[in-house]
Amino acid sequence: MSWVSKGFLWISLCSFSFVLAIIIYVIFYFWMIPPTFYRMPMFFDFSSPYPVAVVSLPWKKFRYMNQLDGSLHLCFRESPRNMHIGMLKFTLEIWDNNDTIVYSRFRPTVLRYKDDLETKMETLTLFVFSLFGWTKRQQCQDLILLEYKETSDGFLRRCKDDLTVKVWINKADVEVYQSELLLKTRLRGIRHNMKHYKWTFSWICITSIWFWLFSVLFGCTLYLIG
Amino acid sequence: MSWVSKGFLWISLCSFSFVLAIIIYVIFYFWMIPPTFYRMPMFFDFSSPYPVAVVSLPWKKFRYMNQLDGSLHLCFRESPRNMHIGMLKFTLEIWDNNDTIVYSRFRPTVLRYKDDLETKMETLTLFVFSLFGWTKRQQCQDLILLEYKETSDGFLRRCKDDLTVKVWINKADVEVYQSELLLKTRLRGIRHNMKHYKWTFSWICITSIWFWLFSVLFGCTLYLIG
Amino acid sequence: MSWVSKGFLWISLCSFSFVLAIIIYVIFYFWMIPPTFYRMPMFFDFSSPYPVAVVSLPWKKFRYMNQLDGSLHLCFRESPRNMHIGMLKFTLEIWDNNDTIVYSRFRPTVLRYKDDLETKMETLTLFVFSLFGWTKRQQCQDLILLEYKETSDGFLRRCKDDLTVKVWINKADVEVYQSELLLKTRLRGIRHNMKHYKWTFSWICITSIWFWLFSVLFGCTLYLIG
Amino acid sequence: MSWVSKGFLWISLCSFSFVLAIIIYVIFYFWMIPPTFYRMPMFFDFSSPYPVAVVSLPWKKFRYMNQLDGSLHLCFRESPRNMHIGMLKFTLEIWDNNDTIVYSRFRPTVLRYKDDLETKMETLTLFVFSLFGWTKRQQCQDLILLEYKETSDGFLRRCKDDLTVKVWINKADVEVYQSELLLKTRLRGIRHNMKHYKWTFSWICITSIWFWLFSVLFGCTLYLIG
Repeated sequence: MSWVSKGFLWISLCSFSFVLAIIIYVIFYFWMIPPTFYRMPMFFDFSSPYPVAVVSLPWKKFRYMNQLDGSLHLCFRESPRNMHIGMLKFTLEIWDNNDTIVYSRFRPTVLRYKDDLETKMETLTLFVFSLFGWTKRQQCQDLILLEYKETSDGFLRRCKDDLTVKVWINKADVEVYQSELLLKTRLRGIRHNMKHYKWTFSWICITSIWFWLFSVLFGCTLYLIG
Repeated sequence: MSWVSKGFLWISLCSFSFVLAIIIYVIFYFWMIPPTFYRMPMFFDFSSPYPVAVVSLPWKKFRYMNQLDGSLHLCFRESPRNMHIGMLKFTLEIWDNNDTIVYSRFRPTVLRYKDDLETKMETLTLFVFSLFGWTKRQQCQDLILLEYKETSDGFLRRCKDDLTVKVWINKADVEVYQSELLLKTRLRGIRHNMKHYKWTFSWICITSIWFWLFSVLFGCTLYLIG
Repeated sequence: MSWVSKGFLWISLCSFSFVLAIIIYVIFYFWMIPPTFYRMPMFFDFSSPYPVAVVSLPWKKFRYMNQLDGSLHLCFRESPRNMHIGMLKFTLEIWDNNDTIVYSRFRPTVLRYKDDLETKMETLTLFVFSLFGWTKRQQCQDLILLEYKETSDGFLRRCKDDLTVKVWINKADVEVYQSELLLKTRLRGIRHNMKHYKWTFSWICITSIWFWLFSVLFGCTLYLIG
Repeated sequence: MSWVSKGFLWISLCSFSFVLAIIIYVIFYFWMIPPTFYRMPMFFDFSSPYPVAVVSLPWKKFRYMNQLDGSLHLCFRESPRNMHIGMLKFTLEIWDNNDTIVYSRFRPTVLRYKDDLETKMETLTLFVFSLFGWTKRQQCQDLILLEYKETSDGFLRRCKDDLTVKVWINKADVEVYQSELLLKTRLRGIRHNMKHYKWTFSWICITSIWFWLFSVLFGCTLYLIG
């Protein structure tokens, strides 16, 4: 074989094994890393004196997680009743399967005050938009009810069953257009490193797969050519 | 026979059998696939403290179904009473023939708030339309009360009798122009595949029917011509 | 060795040991001095008649401290209810681990009064900003609840367990957008001197480290050169 | 020694001893005379029906005093409630360590009345300042609650322990932005004379120290020169 064909062989094997290594790593990555962001609509039962919304966290989803970060996204109706309702208290409780509370936090909140004049001027300014239903009178808030540092005692790691999230409101008169629980999780152990130190980890893995593949392919080629 | 007539015969048999195959498949398809979308008007009994509307789902219709997706379409009257009624709660229950609840979900909702000035300006703007009765003061909402993923435990598959859908409202003062239950269903087994992978399935079926027809017709023709 | 190389050696050793001394002192400084400013969000439980917010001061953080200076930063909602609520009383209590109060102070406060005309004119002036949500109707206050001179009796020095800070409000109707406890601490003993007389202390330390390093390095060099 | 050097010596000794005498007297003066003006913030406890503010007068500070002059500086919130609250009564009590009242005076007061038009015109005039928070609606008053002639019976001279000052308000609805107790004291005996007849006293003292210093220094110089 001339040196031209040898060089061509070398380069083609090199690039082929590199592309294959990347493909293998990408498949491996998405097989290993479960999704870590969840949006869960919360439906409060406003017929009871202390409205409550219940959402279950299936164990299967949170198997590889060890920390939770969550906020309650609420869109309040900007009505006089809501404006004068005073301080609200949202309590989040995470319940075990054995009916024990493993986590409990509350956050107080209140709507931004607008006086009559401001409301009227706003109405005049935004009238065209509200006529076609593009805007509505609302105030959206994000209440941070779960924090990484507070959930780091590992109740997620210990639990082997489904957890239940309950959110309570202390006043039944409050009017809410919609509410969602936004959950972000941190993975555990090797998975956390794979996700957090993405570039470092991928570089190490791809390189090692690449070298391994290349050596195998090169050996086979040499053996076949004789 | 000259090669011209042979070619003509060939082409005509080919096209005839293709058209026939399509006709056969279309008839077969509509015989197999029952309708999967239903509109059911809901008439609430507002004389009781908790207005309820009842609709029956006949077993015959839902024989081949295994999942339900449904929303309640409501048009609220935009009156001050409705505006100040606060949070409403719509509860959907599916009852068995043995008086057991097989499914139950609720959704809270509230009307979009409009203050006096906005209402007045809207009246002025839309006055011509409302004079001729082309528009009316209403707010329409779609409450999603049944979801595919939530109804996938197969209660539709197990049931052998008619089901009953009941929708409850927690406040009797609410004023509703009209309400409808919109149901979408997913079919079971082979029917689901026929509907879902429509083009793939139809292509395979039509091709195979076509070849079968063509071979039969061609054989018959050869036999007849001698 | 010529006098040129000797001088060069002398100067390079001098500057090298000086830079090294500075680096050593900076590392030592940041290892010795813990952070002395803390921001702690206070979440008042407004569902009780006397809203209370609880924050724990971990002993670990305050190990080297002996005096506390703290203020409660409050942003009141500028609503009619708040405007007419009258005098408020904020009480701060520091509780021991044995359920004994080691410190207790209260401060009265009231919102700045604005009459209707002023409010309306303000609304007109700031309308554009409030339309986009850049400003909101609030009055922020800083209530000084802990002072260096009052906490100098050394309860921080004596305590060996975590302390708990409780802040009480005497009226549950008050509406608060947000509240934070800002804590500044003074260090104890040598650490206090290091932080307070920064330049003097650093000058003395760096000089002594420098001379010590230089003498060691110079001795080694002489021994090596022979 | 020539007469030039003798004259020079004479003048230098003269001026040196004069400067030294002044320095000595100034040091002596500030060592003898304690501060006689105190500002003490008063924090009224508005949660009780008769709001009270308590301040302690440590005996150490008031050791050399024999008369007190004090006024309560109050900034009232110019709100409708305050405007219509009527006559207020502020009572000052000085309590002994043995729970006996050694002094008690009260002063009635009322806010300056402003009618609506005046308030509105004020608002219009001062609007720019109040928009940036440079002014606020308040009325400040000085209530003289302690007078020299009333405290001349010498309870300060007799007391050997800390005193406690209590200020009572007869109505809990009053709204106060801030309040301070401003205390001026008169010294006792020689200290009083030193402070009161400052120039006469200092002239006599400085002259006598000067002569004494000069004679000592001159004697020493003569002895040294021989």
